[in-house]
Amino acid sequence: MPGFVNGSTTAVLLAPQRVRPQEGTETAERFTRSATTDGRFMSTSDCLAWLAERRAVHGFQVSRIPFDRLAGWSFDPATGNLGHRSGRFFTVEGLRVRMEPAPVERWAQPIIVQLEIGILGILVKELDGVLHCLMQAKMEPGNSNVVQLSPTVQATRSNYTRIHQGRPTPYLEYFLAPRRGRVLADSLQSEQGGWFLHKRNRNIVVETEDDVDVLDDYCWLTVAQIQELLCLDNVVNMDARTVLSSMPFAAVQRPASDDGFGAALRRSLRPEAGAMHTGTEVISWLTENKTRYELAQDRIALNEVTGWRRTDADIAHDSGEFFRVVAVDVRAASREVTSWSQPLIAPVSHGLLALLTRRVDGVLHVLAQARPAAGAIDIVEVAPTVHCMPHTHRDTEPARRPRFLDYVRDADPLRIRYQAWLSEEGGRFWHAKNHYLVVEVDDDFPADVPDGYRWLTVHQLMVLLRAGNCLNVEARSLLACLETWIGR
Amino acid sequence: MPGFVNGSTTAVLLAPQRVRPQEGTETAERFTRSATTDGRFMSTSDCLAWLAERRAVHGFQVSRIPFDRLAGWSFDPATGNLGHRSGRFFTVEGLRVRMEPAPVERWAQPIIVQLEIGILGILVKELDGVLHCLMQAKMEPGNSNVVQLSPTVQATRSNYTRIHQGRPTPYLEYFLAPRRGRVLADSLQSEQGGWFLHKRNRNIVVETEDDVDVLDDYCWLTVAQIQELLCLDNVVNMDARTVLSSMPFAAVQRPASDDGFGAALRRSLRPEAGAMHTGTEVISWLTENKTRYELAQDRIALNEVTGWRRTDADIAHDSGEFFRVVAVDVRAASREVTSWSQPLIAPVSHGLLALLTRRVDGVLHVLAQARPAAGAIDIVEVAPTVHCMPHTHRDTEPARRPRFLDYVRDADPLRIRYQAWLSEEGGRFWHAKNHYLVVEVDDDFPADVPDGYRWLTVHQLMVLLRAGNCLNVEARSLLACLETWIGR
Repeated sequence: MPGFVNGSTTAVLLAPQRVRPQEGTETAERFTRSATTDGRFMSTSDCLAWLAERRAVHGFQVSRIPFDRLAGWSFDPATGNLGHRSGRFFTVEGLRVRMEPAPVERWAQPIIVQLEIGILGILVKELDGVLHCLMQAKMEPGNSNVVQLSPTVQATRSNYTRIHQGRPTPYLEYFLAPRRGRVLADSLQSEQGGWFLHKRNRNIVVETEDDVDVLDDYCWLTVAQIQELLCLDNVVNMDARTVLSSMPFAAVQRPASDDGFGAALRRSLRPEAGAMHTGTEVISWLTENKTRYELAQDRIALNEVTGWRRTDADIAHDSGEFFRVVAVDVRAASREVTSWSQPLIAPVSHGLLALLTRRVDGVLHVLAQARPAAGAIDIVEVAPTVHCMPHTHRDTEPARRPRFLDYVRDADPLRIRYQAWLSEEGGRFWHAKNHYLVVEVDDDFPADVPDGYRWLTVHQLMVLLRAGNCLNVEARSLLACLETWIGR
Repeated sequence: MPGFVNGSTTAVLLAPQRVRPQEGTETAERFTRSATTDGRFMSTSDCLAWLAERRAVHGFQVSRIPFDRLAGWSFDPATGNLGHRSGRFFTVEGLRVRMEPAPVERWAQPIIVQLEIGILGILVKELDGVLHCLMQAKMEPGNSNVVQLSPTVQATRSNYTRIHQGRPTPYLEYFLAPRRGRVLADSLQSEQGGWFLHKRNRNIVVETEDDVDVLDDYCWLTVAQIQELLCLDNVVNMDARTVLSSMPFAAVQRPASDDGFGAALRRSLRPEAGAMHTGTEVISWLTENKTRYELAQDRIALNEVTGWRRTDADIAHDSGEFFRVVAVDVRAASREVTSWSQPLIAPVSHGLLALLTRRVDGVLHVLAQARPAAGAIDIVEVAPTVHCMPHTHRDTEPARRPRFLDYVRDADPLRIRYQAWLSEEGGRFWHAKNHYLVVEVDDDFPADVPDGYRWLTVHQLMVLLRAGNCLNVEARSLLACLETWIGR
């Protein structure tokens, strides 16, 4: 139906087609089928072998370098901002933050500024009646294991306007208008608000009926296979996870093969699921939290950022906490250009990201947190229940630690429904690994939920996700992790 | 149900209440009943007399003054920015804009900066089984008729944190957490992107069961009465219109008293209405347009704004086009303080804001425009089909005039379903009146709709409105105007 998707609606107006009420449901049912079916082309273990093979074939070499060995990147003499001579990609600048109320209300920090909106796209196609996703074995310099499973296309605006002067991005034509194929999901989504200023990417899923030529670094996988890989450490990259989280799933009936957690999740996908709060109450809760905080974000010169020190090798906080700005050199044969160097953000420790869940009359609810962030595009986003770097709180007295952190750390292993170490975006972050957990609370979990938290159904989370700019990237990752239970 | 609305959800967790699927529908049905019922307290003509009386009682005097007679306001010697000595309310600063693609891609202009989020709230209460809205006869210095019908509360953050050091804002307690009463609508909404940088207000409707003491400048009106007043020129103010637009209406069956336009509108309220585009396609269209434009907004000093000239009396563009910054002196007895002076933005001419509508298989569709604005918070918003200042285009050749402007100006009067002159916010704008129109297109309307436009159902508009920051304030006003047909 190109008339619906492309610019012109001529065909539509001449012969208006009615949207059947179940159209959204049909799409969701097709994704659910894909989430419960093995792939046509590769077994999941073959996929791991294939990733290892791609890693070996390309023989990527990534090494830390001092700043003065960066090619094309330099510190502006006046501002100290770190940027590329083309003026594109991104810059590392300073941000002065006033956030009230907060444990620390005023600070300054380095921040990545990348205001252009890139594309994270997954191309899907029905093969033997089942949706398959065209996934990529993609090298990113910041990944500790270099190559991870990525979306079909992962392109900054600079990529696709060819500032690299490298090879064109494969399959990009499916994601740029006017495009062939049908858009199944499409929204703007934010990325790490602690490290990026107002960064967003377009998350898009496009279905094609074309014969697609599968290049060497690509393969077709079902959603079930991607979900299986998502249960392993550091295989499915952040960009794949966030696009995956935008895929709709239907609440189909399945024989419960577990103690009912999967069935409770499936019930929670329904619009009419018995939710603790109405849709209006959910929006009002988020609105209330956006007005509760005052957030002033002033872009300043990097050399005006106090409390941070630049050496030849890095930019670090005087306390040694938080993160460092570092530089790397990349030698590789398979990327848009054969070798390059670039700055990256290196967190000093790992994060803990946990979603607490609870069955209420058989319907799974998740405990969402309304959380402000330094670089957030709209003050507050919906975050995981626990979203912190535990290292920062190692000497904090229990009463002042992030809410529910101790609860998650002390959780009965039998109540952990998902756990894995997952990497953040390897194109911007150096060895940024976080521990992702989904925990089902026990019956004596305290009933009193603080103002900044609400129990939502998965359907309610999806409504916010669909609107764009509501769920932070860590919450979207955890939604994708939780959804590995769809078929169970 | 205070447990749902206030901070603590203790009661909810101990005895979880299920949301009945029809809960949203019930609220919508109550608003529809209010939109079809005369009021208990005052006839509509009495309301006009009452507004005239309040105007006479207070004897407001508003006069233009030169800048040097502003009390408490001054131009910063270094930047030229115009601000209040308290540092609050708002400032007039400079904005440098790069918008691509656009007829003019780079310019600078004065802009109002008011990043604090204020409250526009309407308190509602069932009286004789019908929802009534507590409306206010409110004086705003920029209104040409000084007093208009306003929401219960219209308060900047400065208002309610008492920077005025004046009297407290009546009824504010219903809108601040923790609050009594039930929230029926609550979202953040933008205001004029051409004159404000990232300005938003919280639009909130709260229902109470309290006995409410009705002060002199307030009265209870049904939605039907407000809608009747909305069909008159310059009676219902902008703030009332935007809150009104957030109220849900149900698609109840009514005897069609007209040629079916009202019935087509009511069918268009249904989630399952036969829409030309799916929800995914609508979101994708908006996403596509947000990535089509590049918008860079750089706050600069007002005295760096080139092409504009400041005299003792105003700040104006060299061409005499667009708007002026002026100052006024206010003498009044009934506002938070008895007299004050302040700057205002004075547009040089009126705007034309028109929504084209069309019945498709009996379901009303409106032609939405994805329109970027200098001060927009997210690049593009959904705007009326025609949104322009015709004066600016008086010498433009027809082919380069705003799309559909000539169509609206030449429209058969019988096809005009709504028209009135309405005022923009009199607290910031001086005599800013716009011509608002809803026009039903004829059958030979060109079928080829440009990329930036889409036919949406009213339900689809409401989904975007509910999410917040999607519809611009003029589109929200026109939605409220269109909904005057709910009961017809």
